[in-house]
Amino acid sequence: MKIIKNPLILSKCSKNLKLKGKSIGFVPTMGALHEGHLSLIRKAREENDVVVVSIFVNPAQFGPKEDLRKYPRPLKADLSLCKSAGVDYVFSPGVNDMFGESFSTYIDVKTLSGVFCGKSRPGHFRGVATIVAKLFNIIRPDTAYFGQKDAQQAIIIKRMAGDLNFPVKIKVMPIVRQEDGLALSSRNVYLKSRERKSALVLHKSLKLAELLIGNGAVNVSVIIDRMRRLILKDKAARIDYIAIVDPKNLEPLKKISGRCLIILAVWIGKTRLIDNGMADA
Amino acid sequence: MKIIKNPLILSKCSKNLKLKGKSIGFVPTMGALHEGHLSLIRKAREENDVVVVSIFVNPAQFGPKEDLRKYPRPLKADLSLCKSAGVDYVFSPGVNDMFGESFSTYIDVKTLSGVFCGKSRPGHFRGVATIVAKLFNIIRPDTAYFGQKDAQQAIIIKRMAGDLNFPVKIKVMPIVRQEDGLALSSRNVYLKSRERKSALVLHKSLKLAELLIGNGAVNVSVIIDRMRRLILKDKAARIDYIAIVDPKNLEPLKKISGRCLIILAVWIGKTRLIDNGMADA
Repeated sequence: MKIIKNPLILSKCSKNLKLKGKSIGFVPTMGALHEGHLSLIRKAREENDVVVVSIFVNPAQFGPKEDLRKYPRPLKADLSLCKSAGVDYVFSPGVNDMFGESFSTYIDVKTLSGVFCGKSRPGHFRGVATIVAKLFNIIRPDTAYFGQKDAQQAIIIKRMAGDLNFPVKIKVMPIVRQEDGLALSSRNVYLKSRERKSALVLHKSLKLAELLIGNGAVNVSVIIDRMRRLILKDKAARIDYIAIVDPKNLEPLKKISGRCLIILAVWIGKTRLIDNGMADA
Repeated sequence: MKIIKNPLILSKCSKNLKLKGKSIGFVPTMGALHEGHLSLIRKAREENDVVVVSIFVNPAQFGPKEDLRKYPRPLKADLSLCKSAGVDYVFSPGVNDMFGESFSTYIDVKTLSGVFCGKSRPGHFRGVATIVAKLFNIIRPDTAYFGQKDAQQAIIIKRMAGDLNFPVKIKVMPIVRQEDGLALSSRNVYLKSRERKSALVLHKSLKLAELLIGNGAVNVSVIIDRMRRLILKDKAARIDYIAIVDPKNLEPLKKISGRCLIILAVWIGKTRLIDNGMADA
């Protein structure tokens, strides 16, 4: 496994790999790897000649009051997980390698980026779209793998890749959960033990919605109200948003007919968690 | 010479060419080709295995009151010029091929895009940066060729390509002029015969500035004032902007020391023309 910090060196490597006709699978991460990331890496390993994982805590996707500084960076453990999973290249640039002094180019995916997580985190998806485009250009993957946990991100990246004609196939892999239902997230380490229990309300409220929809409920405001009441029983929980939307374009639904995406963000103490689920009317 | 309208088909062609190790030279145009474009195409022909020219009047870079509809589209003549110049592929997509109904991704090069031509034409450089990124992803050129006539555009494209790590070398080729000094532009066809004479004030004022700087003038406001007076002697001319800037980052200069870029935009009747020149203190 090669560890590369310099974008130009990795760019040369991938140019050579493409010349040799090798397929490249790419998993972008901010490190603090867990089973969710590993499920993406394993899929990439299965489907490609060469696997590249990036580990970069991207400052452009954090707001000024967010957790950029305290975001976990267990690089040594991450590298060892990558090695065990058969990764060929880890790209772990420094901030200056990615954002030089005169950096001034940003990518916006309008309409999809200002809602939900984008409303609570202004500029977040601009930072995400910009770094992913940079990584695509450096690594030139055939396929890039993203987690369904970040549902809005996955939709935005798909739209960006399509709109800008990136020659990259985007694959979105299912959420990986702990046994009790908590979706894996690098931010779960922030949770104190009592909060860890409260955090289950996200998954519980999704299960409730799926049950209601399975039983024929179609009125979105009724379903969201039931979810809201369930979540607010827990005093540690503060709802950022709950929505039921069209999975293709994030348009909020009023009545459910066909496949829908249920998305939510909830503060548990000082930790903001997100989760989502699909349901069919 | 192959003429391709469908981005996916061209994308497959370029993927195959890259696999074979062929170098691709790319000249993006809006058609209405003149000697300026041809100088880029010849350079691309000289330096690459394969030459791709795009002909696409990009609606995203025109303002609502600009000349999108009347912009000249002599496709047949353009194709014949391309063929004579040894072009391998002409990419001439329709608007719907490039901007589908749900299109919503835009690239902004901050700080460079809101000044000079960007101030007079809000959104223009966003449209330019976005279409160029799309074309780079479809064509995957090794080198792309731009004209120095659009000096601000060239600086913005270089910055975008660097910031987003596009694996594309940007080459900027000198302005091509008619014998009397008028810079070639597809918009020169708009000029009535009397306006055609008035249009010479752009080049004359640049020559004046170069002369003054060559003779030791360093005070920018004095030089610009001399240019302004020369231009306004012609009643058909209305100045949009005149500036003397750092050629690397478009920062306006007060005193000239070293290399500078003199840029201007002038309305001649209903036609807005741009021109520029370099000078050394």
